[in-house]
Amino acid sequence: MVCSNKLRFWIIVFLTVACTVWAGEVTIKNLVFPNESDNSYVELVPEIPLNLKAFTLCMRVATELQGKREIILFAYRTKNHDELNVWRELDGRLSFYLAGDGVLFQVPDLGGLETHLCVIWDSSSGASALFVNGRRSLTKIYSKDHTIKPNGKVILGQDPDSYLGDFDIKQSFVGSISDVNMWDVVLSDGTIQDIYTEKRVPRGNIFDWQSIKFNINGAVQVVDRDL
Amino acid sequence: MVCSNKLRFWIIVFLTVACTVWAGEVTIKNLVFPNESDNSYVELVPEIPLNLKAFTLCMRVATELQGKREIILFAYRTKNHDELNVWRELDGRLSFYLAGDGVLFQVPDLGGLETHLCVIWDSSSGASALFVNGRRSLTKIYSKDHTIKPNGKVILGQDPDSYLGDFDIKQSFVGSISDVNMWDVVLSDGTIQDIYTEKRVPRGNIFDWQSIKFNINGAVQVVDRDL
Amino acid sequence: MVCSNKLRFWIIVFLTVACTVWAGEVTIKNLVFPNESDNSYVELVPEIPLNLKAFTLCMRVATELQGKREIILFAYRTKNHDELNVWRELDGRLSFYLAGDGVLFQVPDLGGLETHLCVIWDSSSGASALFVNGRRSLTKIYSKDHTIKPNGKVILGQDPDSYLGDFDIKQSFVGSISDVNMWDVVLSDGTIQDIYTEKRVPRGNIFDWQSIKFNINGAVQVVDRDL
Repeated sequence: MVCSNKLRFWIIVFLTVACTVWAGEVTIKNLVFPNESDNSYVELVPEIPLNLKAFTLCMRVATELQGKREIILFAYRTKNHDELNVWRELDGRLSFYLAGDGVLFQVPDLGGLETHLCVIWDSSSGASALFVNGRRSLTKIYSKDHTIKPNGKVILGQDPDSYLGDFDIKQSFVGSISDVNMWDVVLSDGTIQDIYTEKRVPRGNIFDWQSIKFNINGAVQVVDRDL
Repeated sequence: MVCSNKLRFWIIVFLTVACTVWAGEVTIKNLVFPNESDNSYVELVPEIPLNLKAFTLCMRVATELQGKREIILFAYRTKNHDELNVWRELDGRLSFYLAGDGVLFQVPDLGGLETHLCVIWDSSSGASALFVNGRRSLTKIYSKDHTIKPNGKVILGQDPDSYLGDFDIKQSFVGSISDVNMWDVVLSDGTIQDIYTEKRVPRGNIFDWQSIKFNINGAVQVVDRDL
Repeated sequence: MVCSNKLRFWIIVFLTVACTVWAGEVTIKNLVFPNESDNSYVELVPEIPLNLKAFTLCMRVATELQGKREIILFAYRTKNHDELNVWRELDGRLSFYLAGDGVLFQVPDLGGLETHLCVIWDSSSGASALFVNGRRSLTKIYSKDHTIKPNGKVILGQDPDSYLGDFDIKQSFVGSISDVNMWDVVLSDGTIQDIYTEKRVPRGNIFDWQSIKFNINGAVQVVDRDL
């Protein structure tokens, strides 16, 4: 295929401008949890209270932990209760718990390459599902008519068995987490695929990773990455 | 981001035309290392000295070596020191070493089908990661504030334990390598995905495979391929 | 991003029409070899003589044969010589033989889900490689300067140890084969990926499956499928 150098030059100029304006890059934070601990965690500050009849929670997560090891991926706890915990279970399944027993999904295991993970739940139907790298899991009915209570703390890296305490090193997160976004509605499959492929989508109204405020505790490192 | 409908229309028309004219093929060199040796290697001639506080290094690599076998993927050595070595470790993990101990990543093993592999490292934060077929690994903090020294030799195929010598046949590369490109900055995730899918991207300023100069030693064969 | 419903409607109409016209579905034949035999085979009638200094051969193939079993995938033989045989070897490797010893590739095994397989070979350099579902294998140098001779017979399903005879039931093909296309040149990586993803590409000038003529022998069934 023939293409003059001059034409090529202008195509490059145009594409560069068009792409920068249109689909451009974003620099975001990547949280690195370098090793097992019972004191390293990151508290995320939500934009609105977590008073929820539905949610979509997404994150990019990579870990080299393998085999029989529970891994906490997200924990939201009020004074006396766990409100929303996302886990990698002992047997590799992924799960979340709103109160009491959780709902578990048999999906490909997490690993050293980043997985884009989303969790959806809607109180009115109880419909819950995961999205792993944009692919939807089967749907399970879970905690119909339940409401998540506000005024707790959201943390990454540890599972609090009391309010911000009683951490178990054998449940701690090791690896990297970034791009944690949360909405108080269930997003469409197409929108979740767009988030996975890094197209611009409506920002999370609970957590928007591009503007999120968080507090670091222990040996967590924060590095920039360009999506 | 706002974009008028009219502008959109013209962008689509332009992109369609541009892509048709341009997206065309590129002929590049493929280096074939047909068997184990302690004398076959290819020296790559860089465009600028490797005086580096950050880099992105990408290549397409396929090998049928399996099991407990170290495989050297890239070696940059100055007179008395290894400066940057990329390895497939005995246990299948991929790694790189800037000086002393390296950083290892548990990712899918190399194999007989080509893997597109990129390594990124940034001295200011120590953030390092791999990209395997466009998918990012977890991030690890490694060699913060280190600088890679210039005026050495870059070779493919062998691990030099002295300056261009002391090769170990049991670490040699067997298979094919091509499309080796290197930048003195960390590219964005999106750009690395574009490289993987063979979209046109900014050329490597250290190595640009389309115009690279190299010197063949031993039984390495060079064949053309059209991307 | 805002986009009026009316404009959306017309974009959808346009894309639908364009895709239907352009990349739309094609009904092709699928050859089903229901069981082991030493007499079921399909002879393909080439458009031009197989007087070849280079080729690309692609097919979609699925089989439930497993373990230690040779499987013939394609056989071209002149009066007294095998000219081009493609095999699944006893150990699962894929291979092809132009004359005498063949060239073998360690790639993922065939299975019950269709594999899109392409073989490329170029006499001038000897460069040969496979593409499995669009992914390129390592490159091997094989039969440099050789020429494939014309005026033989191409068959699927059996390996002829004499001219259209001496079939071995333990090498016969069981499963389904379709979309067999062949060119007298090496196609680019990008074109082969387009064939895999069923985009329209230049038709095979030796075999074009959409217009191919073939002769059925034995218990081979021919069914339609829509790509």
